Amino acid sequence: MVLFGLFAKYDVNAMPKGSEDAVPMASKYPMFQDTHVMIFIGFGFLMTFLKRYGFSAVSVNLLLACFTIEWGLIVRGLLSHEFAQDGKFSIGLDQLLTADFAAAVILISMGAMLGKLSPVQYLIMALIETPVAIFVEHHVVHTFHVNDVGGSIVVHAFGAYFGLACSKAFASSGQREHENEGSVYHSDIYAMIGAIFLWVFWPSFNAAVAEPADARQRAVCNTFLSLVACTITTFLFSQATDHHKKFDMVHIANSTLAGGVTIGTTANVVLHPLHALIVGVVAGAVSVIGYKYITPLLSSKLGAHDTCGVNNLHGMPGVLAGIFSAIFVLAYDPAAYGSSLNVIYPAMKSADNAEGFILRLKIFNQVREKEMYADGDYFETPADYDFTTRVRTFGQFQSLQVVSVADYF
Amino acid sequence: MVLFGLFAKYDVNAMPKGSEDAVPMASKYPMFQDTHVMIFIGFGFLMTFLKRYGFSAVSVNLLLACFTIEWGLIVRGLLSHEFAQDGKFSIGLDQLLTADFAAAVILISMGAMLGKLSPVQYLIMALIETPVAIFVEHHVVHTFHVNDVGGSIVVHAFGAYFGLACSKAFASSGQREHENEGSVYHSDIYAMIGAIFLWVFWPSFNAAVAEPADARQRAVCNTFLSLVACTITTFLFSQATDHHKKFDMVHIANSTLAGGVTIGTTANVVLHPLHALIVGVVAGAVSVIGYKYITPLLSSKLGAHDTCGVNNLHGMPGVLAGIFSAIFVLAYDPAAYGSSLNVIYPAMKSADNAEGFILRLKIFNQVREKEMYADGDYFETPADYDFTTRVRTFGQFQSLQVVSVADYF
Amino acid sequence: MVLFGLFAKYDVNAMPKGSEDAVPMASKYPMFQDTHVMIFIGFGFLMTFLKRYGFSAVSVNLLLACFTIEWGLIVRGLLSHEFAQDGKFSIGLDQLLTADFAAAVILISMGAMLGKLSPVQYLIMALIETPVAIFVEHHVVHTFHVNDVGGSIVVHAFGAYFGLACSKAFASSGQREHENEGSVYHSDIYAMIGAIFLWVFWPSFNAAVAEPADARQRAVCNTFLSLVACTITTFLFSQATDHHKKFDMVHIANSTLAGGVTIGTTANVVLHPLHALIVGVVAGAVSVIGYKYITPLLSSKLGAHDTCGVNNLHGMPGVLAGIFSAIFVLAYDPAAYGSSLNVIYPAMKSADNAEGFILRLKIFNQVREKEMYADGDYFETPADYDFTTRVRTFGQFQSLQVVSVADYF
Repeated sequence: MVLFGLFAKYDVNAMPKGSEDAVPMASKYPMFQDTHVMIFIGFGFLMTFLKRYGFSAVSVNLLLACFTIEWGLIVRGLLSHEFAQDGKFSIGLDQLLTADFAAAVILISMGAMLGKLSPVQYLIMALIETPVAIFVEHHVVHTFHVNDVGGSIVVHAFGAYFGLACSKAFASSGQREHENEGSVYHSDIYAMIGAIFLWVFWPSFNAAVAEPADARQRAVCNTFLSLVACTITTFLFSQATDHHKKFDMVHIANSTLAGGVTIGTTANVVLHPLHALIVGVVAGAVSVIGYKYITPLLSSKLGAHDTCGVNNLHGMPGVLAGIFSAIFVLAYDPAAYGSSLNVIYPAMKSADNAEGFILRLKIFNQVREKEMYADGDYFETPADYDFTTRVRTFGQFQSLQVVSVADYF
Repeated sequence: MVLFGLFAKYDVNAMPKGSEDAVPMASKYPMFQDTHVMIFIGFGFLMTFLKRYGFSAVSVNLLLACFTIEWGLIVRGLLSHEFAQDGKFSIGLDQLLTADFAAAVILISMGAMLGKLSPVQYLIMALIETPVAIFVEHHVVHTFHVNDVGGSIVVHAFGAYFGLACSKAFASSGQREHENEGSVYHSDIYAMIGAIFLWVFWPSFNAAVAEPADARQRAVCNTFLSLVACTITTFLFSQATDHHKKFDMVHIANSTLAGGVTIGTTANVVLHPLHALIVGVVAGAVSVIGYKYITPLLSSKLGAHDTCGVNNLHGMPGVLAGIFSAIFVLAYDPAAYGSSLNVIYPAMKSADNAEGFILRLKIFNQVREKEMYADGDYFETPADYDFTTRVRTFGQFQSLQVVSVADYF
Repeated sequence: MVLFGLFAKYDVNAMPKGSEDAVPMASKYPMFQDTHVMIFIGFGFLMTFLKRYGFSAVSVNLLLACFTIEWGLIVRGLLSHEFAQDGKFSIGLDQLLTADFAAAVILISMGAMLGKLSPVQYLIMALIETPVAIFVEHHVVHTFHVNDVGGSIVVHAFGAYFGLACSKAFASSGQREHENEGSVYHSDIYAMIGAIFLWVFWPSFNAAVAEPADARQRAVCNTFLSLVACTITTFLFSQATDHHKKFDMVHIANSTLAGGVTIGTTANVVLHPLHALIVGVVAGAVSVIGYKYITPLLSSKLGAHDTCGVNNLHGMPGVLAGIFSAIFVLAYDPAAYGSSLNVIYPAMKSADNAEGFILRLKIFNQVREKEMYADGDYFETPADYDFTTRVRTFGQFQSLQVVSVADYF
């Protein structure tokens, strides 16, 4: 916290260099607000699915997004041409929108680490990851001329694999099959609040920086159709892969959104509605299969535990977005896109491992293993917290009571 | 599900005929997004009031809306002039908005059947109802020249009475007074999330297709004033009709919205604020009286059980909208509106009964009577599900414990 | 209720004097809708934090907002130049937006009185407070030429201190340390739904009436930066002031918003990003300190019990907004702002004390002391209400069981 206090001060001191931008904002503001709802309501509530980690999910999401928005504004401002020339950088609606995107990267990484870090550790992660993400994005966009309008590669895939690399570096046996890692009936419904707001506003996310207006409308329509197809596919695959042929709320809250990620890179590219639907179908199928088979493997074989399954919602769909981008681009301009995939992975891998070890330094207070995936160590909780959030079937409940009664007599 | 898989494939194959529309979208997008929030957040959470059916309400709402949007796009596209001429149809923001309206029809019918159908049966209902709805709408708008800007007749009244007809055809004694049909304290608060989002964005729903801009503003103001008057009336009537003079959350979550339905048909017509307020007052009164006295009668006398009370929120207010439309129109253009009411009912009645019997075919897996209004048969549920969602007073709880302790000794 | 019925009729009769305004609405509608979400979702859910008062919080919020919107439209209309000249007043989008602001005043006062009044008493409060608020606002804006774009003084500070004065006049010893005054785990998460929607849309609230477009963008950017800085500060101070060094959800749901209030008065004034950040930091610090130390003092020493802590979220930050306004204005136009602070307090104090005594008249049904902060007296509640909403630790639960078992043998 002291460390963070210092950086927060630095933020404030760095700011006076900026000055307000006076461009009219009529057309951009609604999409900016939609993106804003996604960051704070969408991500925040999507992560409340853990039964004992609801306060942390929504609050740390808020704290981390705020911190990253400030920090991203500064890093990006200090690297801008404007700063190099004038020693000042501007802050306007465009910069705030970009800062929201930067926050999304960190929140995705937070998803992989959900329940395993203390608030200070999350902030340190954001402190390190934000400049790396901006560096990678610059590399992808300017060196390789990749068109990535919805940020599927530079936001989703990067955020997911950075988070997974952290998770691997930070792995411990106690993280797996922890009794706190699960939902209760009502916490799954909270998560759906986040999921559906993400679903509804995803077209704005993919269209927000698209230019000109007709590309913006294409981005909206393609994202919409991809999400629709992805959702139907998710229900089909969720039922098909389940032992009891029932739907799984984890898939419904997460995989239904994969269509938005996968169409992201190419949402503004001219393409047929059929293509958007195909992208959505593939995204939904890959995401459900990921949750069902790949996440357990990643955890047991590679030691990369993934609390929210960000690999399935952001990682693989982001990579798919790159592949689809390569496929679509063959039709009219292969040269500009060819190497879009290769750039991501080396850039990420090197940064990640160092990162994990910094977080493990004993200087920062670690989460006690018993209190992983739980609010109790960091939030004041009401008196019912233990009672309401522990898994409790009739059977468990009765045996507990019986013991206490037996003790009494 | 196999059946649905085939149709989903057909959807995808039907799509390549479409091509993207390039009209700018600055002015329409915010209202489109508001409508979108209503369909997915509003309807989805409004139906979570059942204590053991929250997963299904929000998830099946999502699935059914997605399916209907695709299916509605295809049906409407195949019937368009453009398709008749070119063999192709366009998909743009206007078409997506119309598809959202088509989804609303199905979701209203779903409200009457809530808890009584399996997911596949809901999809079959949507498959049959969507073309019928489009046919009726075409008839109402083009043959009878009815002005129905907010869709009160073709969306709300049609959806409600189609659902009720299904419910009658599908009736069984076990549907009534089922132990799962009720709320718990927190599920009523979930429902209010949906209700208030519907309330807040209803002006956009009624104004979205109004032209020109001044009619759009009238539609917003009239809907707003009608909702305000309706809400106050609902509180008054809810208290007045209750035995203990308390408010009933069912009325507050539903009847407060009836003002939006009833003003829908005439929201864009020039009228005084007073008229909008009167419409709202009548809508609220009729809706509360409907919940209190008519819904039980429909169920016991006519055998049409109505889980969400769609007759009171969509059916009767939709009919009222037609009546008000006829009243208002007498002032300046009687010829165009006169027969607006007569057209709805014959068109519906014939389609409905066939429908119900198709759903009853034993081919499709029926909902087990014990598991009506419950998630357990179709969703994987957390371990606390049985414990949290059964009605439990202190008394019930103690007697349960005592029995188990007695067994133990 | 009879009294209210009479006034509701009067509302309806007063309305026909109005006529619709035909100005285009493209640019203003999105911000109007954002404000609307804040009033109904934001305030409504923020107040659901009490464990046994969720129905009332969200429903009475809805009723009171509707009543105030109608009543505010009439009062403001009857006082308008237009009415004085023509005997009619206009209702358009601008008037509805202003009415939303008027509702905010009443809802803030409701926050101070949350759980202590019956629905009729809240309506009487709104009936009296609305004309007073409009009178004070007129005085502040026109007599003293105060620039208060986000309404920090005339909405937030006035609403908070009116509510506190009511609370003092209405004080009784039973209000303090009442067993119903507290949250359960899930009710705190409900409150976060409201808090985050307020947070996300606050820039629209402060910018909605700002003119011209560049001032609107400045208002958005300044509010955004102030909120970000305020949020980070809130987390720091919440942890620093806690005995166990944990975060307190009351601070996180409320103090994070104080930055929006404090920047409100000056959001459209030209200033550096640094200044917005400083405003946010001061606001967050003052608000957390208020919750921690000043609210208990107000209650015990002055007898002004403040259920939601509106003094900390609206009162002191609103006063701070005036102070910052005075500081900022020294740079370029001291004359117009000098007396902005002095005007609020005398105008409020005189009106408040009479008010409290009217509410205490035994004519209106009072809230029974045992049922303060609880829904049971005014809402039909599901069977689990008592079980779910009483604080229940394992210990309490076991002792209850043991007693009952002991009784049984």
